[in-house]
Amino acid sequence: MKTFAESVDLAAAFGTVNELWSPKVIAQVNDQYVKLAKVQGEITWHSHEHEDELFYIVRGHLRIHYEDRVVDLPQGSLHVVPRGVQHKPVADEECWIMLIETVTTKHTGDVDMPYTKTLEQQLAG
Amino acid sequence: MKTFAESVDLAAAFGTVNELWSPKVIAQVNDQYVKLAKVQGEITWHSHEHEDELFYIVRGHLRIHYEDRVVDLPQGSLHVVPRGVQHKPVADEECWIMLIETVTTKHTGDVDMPYTKTLEQQLAG
Repeated sequence: MKTFAESVDLAAAFGTVNELWSPKVIAQVNDQYVKLAKVQGEITWHSHEHEDELFYIVRGHLRIHYEDRVVDLPQGSLHVVPRGVQHKPVADEECWIMLIETVTTKHTGDVDMPYTKTLEQQLAG
Repeated sequence: MKTFAESVDLAAAFGTVNELWSPKVIAQVNDQYVKLAKVQGEITWHSHEHEDELFYIVRGHLRIHYEDRVVDLPQGSLHVVPRGVQHKPVADEECWIMLIETVTTKHTGDVDMPYTKTLEQQLAG
Protein backbone atom coordinates (compact mmCIF):
# COMPACT_ATOMS: atom_id res chain seq x y z
CA MET A 1 0.00 0.00 0.00
CA LYS A 2 1.26 3.47 -0.91
CA THR A 3 2.25 5.76 1.95
CA PHE A 4 0.95 9.32 1.77
CA ALA A 5 2.08 12.56 3.39
CA GLU A 6 0.81 12.87 6.95
CA SER A 7 -0.99 16.09 6.18
CA VAL A 8 -1.71 17.78 2.87
CA ASP A 9 -2.19 21.46 2.21
CA LEU A 10 -4.66 21.43 -0.65
CA ALA A 11 -3.50 24.66 -2.29
CA ALA A 12 0.11 23.47 -2.27
CA ALA A 13 -0.87 20.03 -3.58
CA PHE A 14 -2.83 21.59 -6.45
CA GLY A 15 0.37 23.43 -7.32
CA THR A 16 1.88 20.07 -8.29
CA VAL A 17 -1.02 19.16 -10.62
CA ASN A 18 0.10 20.28 -14.07
CA GLU A 19 -2.15 18.32 -16.39
CA LEU A 20 -5.90 18.72 -16.87
CA TRP A 21 -8.19 15.70 -16.26
CA SER A 22 -5.39 13.82 -14.50
CA PRO A 23 -6.49 12.93 -10.96
CA LYS A 24 -3.72 12.63 -8.39
CA VAL A 25 -4.23 10.45 -5.31
CA ILE A 26 -3.20 12.36 -2.18
CA ALA A 27 -4.65 10.25 0.65
CA GLN A 28 -6.53 7.09 1.51
CA VAL A 29 -9.29 6.86 4.11
CA ASN A 30 -10.56 3.32 4.63
CA ASP A 31 -11.33 1.90 1.17
CA GLN A 32 -11.53 5.31 -0.50
CA TYR A 33 -8.93 7.40 -2.28
CA VAL A 34 -8.88 11.18 -2.03
CA LYS A 35 -7.84 12.68 -5.37
CA LEU A 36 -7.18 16.18 -6.67
CA ALA A 37 -7.80 17.19 -10.26
CA LYS A 38 -7.82 20.29 -12.40
CA VAL A 39 -10.41 20.18 -15.13
CA GLN A 40 -11.51 22.39 -17.99
CA GLY A 41 -13.72 21.58 -20.94
CA GLU A 42 -15.47 18.23 -20.73
CA ILE A 43 -14.75 14.56 -20.40
CA THR A 44 -16.58 11.63 -21.96
CA TRP A 45 -19.95 10.31 -20.78
CA HIS A 46 -19.28 7.36 -18.46
CA SER A 47 -20.47 5.56 -15.36
CA HIS A 48 -18.99 3.48 -12.53
CA GLU A 49 -21.19 0.41 -12.13
CA HIS A 50 -20.63 -0.25 -8.43
CA GLU A 51 -19.08 2.94 -7.10
CA ASP A 52 -20.33 6.37 -6.04
CA GLU A 53 -18.01 9.31 -6.75
CA LEU A 54 -17.89 12.47 -4.61
CA PHE A 55 -17.00 15.83 -6.18
CA TYR A 56 -16.04 18.78 -3.96
CA ILE A 57 -15.37 22.06 -5.74
CA VAL A 58 -12.27 23.70 -4.25
CA ARG A 59 -12.00 26.47 -6.85
CA GLY A 60 -14.10 27.45 -9.84
CA HIS A 61 -17.37 26.02 -11.07
CA LEU A 62 -18.37 22.57 -12.36
CA ARG A 63 -21.49 21.18 -13.96
CA ILE A 64 -22.35 17.49 -13.90
CA HIS A 65 -24.51 16.56 -16.86
CA TYR A 66 -26.92 13.66 -16.47
CA GLU A 67 -29.19 12.28 -19.15
CA ASP A 68 -32.19 14.11 -17.64
CA ARG A 69 -30.70 17.16 -15.90
CA VAL A 70 -27.63 19.21 -15.02
CA VAL A 71 -26.33 19.65 -11.47
CA ASP A 72 -24.64 23.01 -11.00
CA LEU A 73 -21.73 23.05 -8.56
CA PRO A 74 -20.25 26.40 -7.52
CA GLN A 75 -17.07 26.70 -5.47
CA GLY A 76 -17.46 25.24 -1.98
CA SER A 77 -20.17 22.76 -2.91
CA LEU A 78 -20.17 18.99 -3.05
CA HIS A 79 -22.15 16.37 -4.91
CA VAL A 80 -22.18 12.58 -5.06
CA VAL A 81 -22.58 10.93 -8.47
CA PRO A 82 -24.51 7.74 -7.72
CA ARG A 83 -23.10 4.42 -8.91
CA GLY A 84 -24.29 3.14 -12.25
CA VAL A 85 -25.46 6.52 -13.55
CA GLN A 86 -24.15 8.00 -16.81
CA HIS A 87 -22.62 11.43 -16.23
CA LYS A 88 -20.35 13.97 -17.89
CA PRO A 89 -18.45 16.68 -15.95
CA VAL A 90 -18.10 20.03 -17.72
CA ALA A 91 -16.15 23.15 -16.70
CA ASP A 92 -16.17 26.30 -18.83
CA GLU A 93 -13.05 27.59 -17.05
CA GLU A 94 -10.35 25.81 -15.06
CA CYS A 95 -11.87 24.19 -11.99
CA TRP A 96 -10.11 22.48 -9.07
CA ILE A 97 -11.87 19.47 -7.59
CA MET A 98 -11.34 17.03 -4.76
CA LEU A 99 -12.71 13.54 -5.43
CA ILE A 100 -13.56 10.72 -3.02
CA GLU A 101 -13.76 7.37 -4.78
CA THR A 102 -13.41 3.69 -3.95
CA VAL A 103 -9.82 2.57 -4.49
CA THR A 104 -10.91 0.42 -7.43
CA THR A 105 -12.76 3.18 -9.34
CA LYS A 106 -11.60 3.56 -12.94
CA HIS A 107 -11.11 7.09 -14.27
CA THR A 108 -13.61 7.03 -17.11
CA GLY A 109 -15.45 3.84 -16.17
CA ASP A 110 -15.43 1.30 -19.00
CA VAL A 111 -14.74 4.01 -21.58
CA ASP A 112 -11.08 4.23 -22.59
CA MET A 113 -10.08 7.59 -24.04
CA PRO A 114 -6.68 9.09 -24.93
CA TYR A 115 -6.79 11.11 -21.69
CA THR A 116 -7.90 8.20 -19.50
CA LYS A 117 -5.47 7.74 -16.59
CA THR A 118 -4.77 4.37 -15.01
CA LEU A 119 -4.79 4.03 -11.22
CA GLU A 120 -0.99 3.63 -11.37
CA GLN A 121 -0.75 6.98 -13.14
CA GLN A 122 -3.03 8.54 -10.53
CA LEU A 123 -0.85 7.16 -7.71
CA ALA A 124 2.48 8.19 -9.25
CA GLY A 125 4.57 11.16 -8.16
CA MET B 1 -30.99 4.50 3.89
CA LYS B 2 -31.26 8.25 4.44
CA THR B 3 -31.63 10.45 1.37
CA PHE B 4 -29.40 13.52 1.24
CA ALA B 5 -29.63 16.79 -0.69
CA GLU B 6 -28.38 16.39 -4.26
CA SER B 7 -25.75 19.06 -3.77
CA VAL B 8 -24.55 20.78 -0.62
CA ASP B 9 -23.09 24.26 -0.31
CA LEU B 10 -20.68 23.81 2.57
CA ALA B 11 -20.90 27.38 3.89
CA ALA B 12 -24.70 27.22 3.94
CA ALA B 13 -24.67 23.79 5.57
CA PHE B 14 -22.32 25.02 8.31
CA GLY B 15 -24.89 27.74 8.96
CA THR B 16 -27.25 25.02 10.23
CA VAL B 17 -24.67 23.58 12.67
CA ASN B 18 -25.40 25.28 15.98
CA GLU B 19 -23.73 23.00 18.50
CA LEU B 20 -20.01 22.41 18.99
CA TRP B 21 -18.63 18.84 18.70
CA SER B 22 -21.86 17.65 17.09
CA PRO B 23 -21.10 16.15 13.66
CA LYS B 24 -23.89 16.38 11.11
CA VAL B 25 -24.02 13.86 8.24
CA ILE B 26 -24.54 15.69 4.93
CA ALA B 27 -23.76 13.00 2.34
CA GLN B 28 -22.81 9.38 1.79
CA VAL B 29 -20.26 8.15 -0.73
CA ASN B 30 -20.00 4.37 -0.91
CA ASP B 31 -19.61 3.11 2.71
CA GLN B 32 -18.48 6.50 4.04
CA TYR B 33 -20.37 9.37 5.58
CA VAL B 34 -19.40 12.99 4.97
CA LYS B 35 -19.95 15.01 8.14
CA LEU B 36 -19.61 18.66 9.09
CA ALA B 37 -18.70 19.81 12.58
CA LYS B 38 -17.80 22.98 14.41
CA VAL B 39 -15.30 22.41 17.18
CA GLN B 40 -13.60 24.52 19.83
CA GLY B 41 -11.64 23.42 22.87
CA GLU B 42 -10.88 19.72 23.01
CA ILE B 43 -12.61 16.36 23.01
CA THR B 44 -11.60 13.20 24.86
CA TRP B 45 -8.74 10.91 23.84
CA HIS B 46 -10.21 8.05 21.83
CA SER B 47 -9.60 5.70 18.93
CA HIS B 48 -11.63 3.85 16.29
CA GLU B 49 -10.35 0.28 16.20
CA HIS B 50 -11.13 -0.57 12.57
CA GLU B 51 -11.78 2.80 10.93
CA ASP B 52 -9.64 5.64 9.56
CA GLU B 53 -11.05 9.15 9.96
CA LEU B 54 -10.34 12.01 7.54
CA PHE B 55 -10.27 15.62 8.76
CA TYR B 56 -10.40 18.50 6.26
CA ILE B 57 -10.14 21.99 7.72
CA VAL B 58 -12.69 24.25 6.04
CA ARG B 59 -12.16 27.24 8.35
CA GLY B 60 -9.83 27.89 11.28
CA HIS B 61 -7.07 25.73 12.69
CA LEU B 62 -7.02 22.28 14.30
CA ARG B 63 -4.38 20.25 16.06
CA ILE B 64 -4.56 16.48 16.36
CA HIS B 65 -2.70 15.28 19.43
CA TYR B 66 -1.19 11.80 19.34
CA GLU B 67 0.66 10.12 22.18
CA ASP B 68 4.03 10.91 20.55
CA ARG B 69 3.40 14.08 18.50
CA VAL B 70 0.99 16.80 17.40
CA VAL B 71 -0.19 17.23 13.80
CA ASP B 72 -0.90 20.86 12.99
CA LEU B 73 -3.72 21.47 10.50
CA PRO B 74 -4.25 24.98 9.14
CA GLN B 75 -7.24 25.94 7.02
CA GLY B 76 -7.30 24.11 3.70
CA SER B 77 -5.36 21.08 4.91
CA LEU B 78 -6.39 17.48 5.40
CA HIS B 79 -5.18 14.60 7.52
CA VAL B 80 -6.19 10.98 8.03
CA VAL B 81 -6.21 9.62 11.58
CA PRO B 82 -5.23 5.97 11.18
CA ARG B 83 -7.45 3.27 12.64
CA GLY B 84 -6.62 2.05 16.11
CA VAL B 85 -4.56 5.09 17.11
CA GLN B 86 -5.38 7.18 20.19
CA HIS B 87 -5.93 10.83 19.27
CA LYS B 88 -7.39 14.04 20.66
CA PRO B 89 -8.51 16.95 18.43
CA VAL B 90 -7.90 20.43 19.87
CA ALA B 91 -8.94 23.85 18.53
CA ASP B 92 -8.05 27.07 20.35
CA GLU B 93 -10.71 28.99 18.41
CA GLU B 94 -13.82 27.84 16.57
CA CYS B 95 -12.85 25.58 13.69
CA TRP B 96 -15.04 24.12 10.92
CA ILE B 97 -14.19 20.64 9.75
CA MET B 98 -15.40 18.16 7.16
CA LEU B 99 -15.02 14.51 8.18
CA ILE B 100 -15.01 11.36 6.06
CA GLU B 101 -15.72 8.26 8.14
CA THR B 102 -17.04 4.76 7.64
CA VAL B 103 -20.81 4.71 8.24
CA THR B 104 -20.31 2.63 11.38
CA THR B 105 -17.76 4.94 13.05
CA LYS B 106 -18.71 5.97 16.58
CA HIS B 107 -18.21 9.62 17.57
CA THR B 108 -15.78 9.13 20.45
CA GLY B 109 -14.90 5.49 19.85
CA ASP B 110 -15.57 3.33 22.89
CA VAL B 111 -15.46 6.35 25.19
CA ASP B 112 -18.92 7.64 26.14
CA MET B 113 -18.94 11.28 27.24
CA PRO B 114 -21.80 13.71 27.95
CA TYR B 115 -21.19 15.32 24.53
CA THR B 116 -20.93 12.03 22.64
CA LYS B 117 -23.42 12.00 19.74
CA THR B 118 -25.04 8.81 18.48
CA LEU B 119 -25.16 8.11 14.74
CA GLU B 120 -28.92 8.78 14.88
CA GLN B 121 -28.22 12.23 16.30
CA GLN B 122 -25.63 12.86 13.60
CA LEU B 123 -28.14 11.85 10.91
CA ALA B 124 -31.07 13.90 12.30
CA GLY B 125 -32.28 17.22 10.89
